[in-house]
Amino acid sequence: MIKLSILGTGNVATHLFKALLQTDGVKIVEVVGRNEEALSKFAAQVPTSSDFSVLADADMYIIAVSDNSINTVSELLTVKDRLIVHTSGSTPMEELSRHERTGVFYPLQTFSSSNPVDFSKVPICVEAKNEEDLNLLKELGARVSESVYEIGTEERRSLHLAAVFVNNFTNHLYHIGAQICKENEVPFKVLAPLIQETAKKIETLSPYDGQTGPARRNDSKTITKHLEQIKNPEFKTVYELLSKSIQTTYGKEL
Amino acid sequence: MIKLSILGTGNVATHLFKALLQTDGVKIVEVVGRNEEALSKFAAQVPTSSDFSVLADADMYIIAVSDNSINTVSELLTVKDRLIVHTSGSTPMEELSRHERTGVFYPLQTFSSSNPVDFSKVPICVEAKNEEDLNLLKELGARVSESVYEIGTEERRSLHLAAVFVNNFTNHLYHIGAQICKENEVPFKVLAPLIQETAKKIETLSPYDGQTGPARRNDSKTITKHLEQIKNPEFKTVYELLSKSIQTTYGKEL
Repeated sequence: MIKLSILGTGNVATHLFKALLQTDGVKIVEVVGRNEEALSKFAAQVPTSSDFSVLADADMYIIAVSDNSINTVSELLTVKDRLIVHTSGSTPMEELSRHERTGVFYPLQTFSSSNPVDFSKVPICVEAKNEEDLNLLKELGARVSESVYEIGTEERRSLHLAAVFVNNFTNHLYHIGAQICKENEVPFKVLAPLIQETAKKIETLSPYDGQTGPARRNDSKTITKHLEQIKNPEFKTVYELLSKSIQTTYGKEL
Repeated sequence: MIKLSILGTGNVATHLFKALLQTDGVKIVEVVGRNEEALSKFAAQVPTSSDFSVLADADMYIIAVSDNSINTVSELLTVKDRLIVHTSGSTPMEELSRHERTGVFYPLQTFSSSNPVDFSKVPICVEAKNEEDLNLLKELGARVSESVYEIGTEERRSLHLAAVFVNNFTNHLYHIGAQICKENEVPFKVLAPLIQETAKKIETLSPYDGQTGPARRNDSKTITKHLEQIKNPEFKTVYELLSKSIQTTYGKEL
């Protein structure tokens, strides 16, 4: 039985809590957080506390707070000879270096408070200072997810950066698409199957090989027509830059 | 029974052919194309021809060729008093105006030759010059797909433009993500569940409300770190511009 203490009450902490509560071989011994109202959501199921300096006995303490607060929480902890991990993609394991046994348990997924997440499909990236702790993290990962990857701090930073492109920026392109639909009184939902298919395609075809559209075809007539159509000057700049970037990517073939 | 003649042998023609061949109440009377080799793929199942000026009798002639060739094919047709449609998102119905009865049957999806497509999930956008033909197009659409929309030429052009953002440009962001992974020796497939979830999220949350990430949080520390990490100058420009566009979108709230 892996005994866990979850430090934090935000989105990641909540989704992690929900998933781990149902996981065999895992016991959440407490949830600790400063926000009393957020804590109350957990109180019906496990002990809660707002004092980071006095923690219950656990095999692992999971700091699931915003990147900027990891250091602050880490400073408050007085537990000795226990594994302390954070859940952040962009924060080095080093951030916890005041402690002896440290690691990272990074679930690579987008967590909105409203959307339920199937944790078994979430890739878990683990890292630890020592071998034994790495094995414990791998075991925990495997209990909750089908995919566990051993990823070092530098590689995790790259993944986090790549995630900004494929998640945050992609979502912004969806927003631009939705705005164009709205301005022209077409329902955005007409585009939903196309959006799903575009995402699905990467599982069988590399994005490089799967690229289509006017920029890929070097179809300057359509590009010019599209630029005339776009009213919002910022969206126009995005169209121009991404078209140029696609043309540069495939430039050598022209 | 709706009798159809398909004019064209490319990706859209092929996917349409496969879907319509299995559709109840529809009969494909012929496939016509200039490319003999491409035509041979259809010859086992229906009559084929390379002469656009002598066509079999049908209720509807579907021009499924590249945008640039629609006019050329349209000029070759001598059929009278029959519905002639094209399948293009960005071409006005007017392009067929030399004919009496015209329309558009636009399946809004990305078609790669290798990937099979479930046509029942493909939104079909229809337009016609007269009411009776519009009904025929709606009937054909409903036989092959669960979603049929009546969309005029201007609205269809907007949808096509929005599709470039959510499909072509999104795929390019996937490519940038894949390149960052490759340069840093992390497997791109770690990002696949995140990509699927980002696409799925739009079905329950608007992209505006679903936006996350450093630009949304105005987290300039992380943005600066990411910019330092990116080696490719063009990817850097894309990162800067899309971050700025996100910040402008939510600027009023800051």
